[in-house]
Formats: sequence, C-alpha cells, structure tokens
Amino acid sequence: MSETTTRDPAARAPGRPRSERAEKAIIEAVLDLLAEESGVAAVSIEAVAARAGVGKTTIYRRWPNKEALIVGALAAAKRPLHDPEHGSLRADLVELARQIGAERGDRHARCFWNVVGGAEKHPRLYARYRNDVIEPRREVLRRVLRRGLERGELRPGVDPEVAIALLVGALAHKTPRDRLPEGFPEAVVDTVLGGIGTEAALGTNAER
Amino acid sequence: MSETTTRDPAARAPGRPRSERAEKAIIEAVLDLLAEESGVAAVSIEAVAARAGVGKTTIYRRWPNKEALIVGALAAAKRPLHDPEHGSLRADLVELARQIGAERGDRHARCFWNVVGGAEKHPRLYARYRNDVIEPRREVLRRVLRRGLERGELRPGVDPEVAIALLVGALAHKTPRDRLPEGFPEAVVDTVLGGIGTEAALGTNAER
Repeated sequence: MSETTTRDPAARAPGRPRSERAEKAIIEAVLDLLAEESGVAAVSIEAVAARAGVGKTTIYRRWPNKEALIVGALAAAKRPLHDPEHGSLRADLVELARQIGAERGDRHARCFWNVVGGAEKHPRLYARYRNDVIEPRREVLRRVLRRGLERGELRPGVDPEVAIALLVGALAHKTPRDRLPEGFPEAVVDTVLGGIGTEAALGTNAER
Repeated sequence: MSETTTRDPAARAPGRPRSERAEKAIIEAVLDLLAEESGVAAVSIEAVAARAGVGKTTIYRRWPNKEALIVGALAAAKRPLHDPEHGSLRADLVELARQIGAERGDRHARCFWNVVGGAEKHPRLYARYRNDVIEPRREVLRRVLRRGLERGELRPGVDPEVAIALLVGALAHKTPRDRLPEGFPEAVVDTVLGGIGTEAALGTNAER
C-alpha cells in the first residue's frame, strides 16, 4: 500500500505529530520535576500537565497513573546499555564503563539519584524502576561477564553481582552530575580485572 | 582544684546538662529534616528550632549559619572511620568495609544521599561536607593502602583513588538504607584484591 493511498486514519491523521510532541513534552516535564530537590514528591499529574502545556486527559490517555508515568519517563531517559560484543572481556567492559560514565553529565542524572534516594518512601515505584529500567541494563553486564567466563577471561568463582557492584559503584560514585576524570572508566576496568593485591596480600587471605 | 571548690561557672552551671540536651535535640532535628524527601531545602533555622523545641538564639549561639549547622550535624552522624591497623591489607580493608557497610542501615543514611544529590544546588555546603566529613574518612583508607604498599601487599602502580572508588562505590551502591547481604563486604574486598580477570583477560589488555 503506497503512502498516498493509505486509508489508515491514525497513520496520516494531522493530530499525530502533535500527539508525539505532547508525549515528548510530558516526558520532559516529568524529568524536570523529578530533578527538583524534592524529587518524586514534586511530581503530580497536575504539575506535569501545567508544565507540559497539556490537559490531564492527554496524560491519562498514555499512562494510567503517576507511577507508570514516572517509570515511563525514566525509561525514556535511561536506555538499555548497548552490548558491544567486541570478543574480549576488557574491550566490552571498557565500552560499557564509558557508556555508564557518559550518562553522568546528563541533565537528567539527578532524577535517578532522587528516585533511588526515595526508595523507602516510594517502594513500589522504586521496585518497578529497578525491574523495568535497571534490570535490563544489568542483564547486559551479566551477559558480557558470562561470555568472558566462557572464553576463560573471567576467573571462575567470581560472583557476577559483586563484579557489577564494583564496576557500576565506582562509576556512579561522586555526585550525580560530576563528570568522571579522563581515563577513569579504563582505570576502573583495568583495576577490577587485575586486582589491587599482590601475591603477598592474597596469601594473607588464604592463611586466614 | 576539687570539684566542690571550683569557681568556674560554666563547669557547674545548672544549665549545662540542659545545654547538652539542646545541642543533641538540634542535631537530631537537622538530621530528621535532612532525611525528608526535599533534603537540604527542608532545613531552615526556624524549622530546626521548632522541631528541637529551642529558640533560634540557642542555635545561632553554636552555629553561625545554616551551612555550619548542617555540616555540624552531618559530622556528628558520620564519624571518621576507625583505622584497624591489623598489620595486613586484607584484614584492614575488610574491617573498613564492614564499618562502611554497617552505616547503611542507619536511619540517617538518607541525609547523606540528599546532600550529595543536592551538590549542584548547594555547592558550598557540599564542598564543606566533602572537606570536613568525607575527606578525613578517605584519608584513613589512603593510609591503609599506603601501609599495604609499604608491606608489598598493594600492586605498585594502582591508583589509590580508583581503589577507593571501587571499595566505597560497591558498598554505597543500592539504595541508601538497603542492608548489604551477609558476606558482601568480604566478597568486595577479596574481589578487589584478587581481580576478576584471568591471565587471558590481562593479556588482551597488554596487547591493545
């Protein structure tokens, strides 16, 4: 079916670009409000509608409630990590570390900080954020580590969750918007791969 | 001079215990307000005075301004790390990791999260917090790593700031009040000491 003869009204309706603009404006409004000092508490359907310049119905048509709206906006701002598949554990981890590090300067970085900080007060929202936004990203890290293990590059016995905590923790350390020093992602990966201890330190460990 | 004959009015003034109680109430009020969703924005001398049940003058007599008051309260809640001096890098790091991990369950944990998250909005407060509260703690970690290097337990060439980011980052990861799983501090230290990569992974690195 050629574009000119289509009869699908949604595909060519004049309202469609406006609807996309509205969705973008709503997501931006949610992220702007979430980045405010009061975080999740600053977000209400009313405040989002006013800031985005849309009616509340326009919001409810897309997201059934505030929780779905916030998680949707966070998912739009924090995309799944791209699996580099370079064929080497170090090359993959360096690229992932750079991706994670590059997100720090983002103007939305504070949204995520506020949502994690508000986890205790908004446990359902936080659980959904973890599940919908964070877990798919961690899954990419797990996959990279698994391939490294299969290629004999990851020490058997290393707990992947501890390895991920080291990598992500070191890169997320500092304030939400501080940029990382030049070469920091590479230094983190090399230090995690090679370890900081000599045989003497590891011997102490075995003797315990 | 015996206690009964002292003429120092401050030392025996009946107001002294009351004054200590007031100071404690003020610090608790600051920490409670800081842990609120709006963080630093929730703290004002008025709000602290009302919550602590003291007059504003009582606060100003001890802290010249809001910034000094907040940093003073944070310093009271987050003490310098205790340097274990066990004579082994692993033993020292494990004890420090346990100290840091144990703070996570603390009801004040969210104060620190909020102050770091508000760094961009309150840069002077954040700088002072880093300098007065965080730096002395990092200095203990640096000292432990330095002793490890002198004993031949730390690989020469390891950047202590990267090592600290790995250790602290992995332990601070997750939400501010989530407790760490049993054995996690030890797993973090052993994984940082021994590294996650095999010779094959490190060889890849050298070939780059």
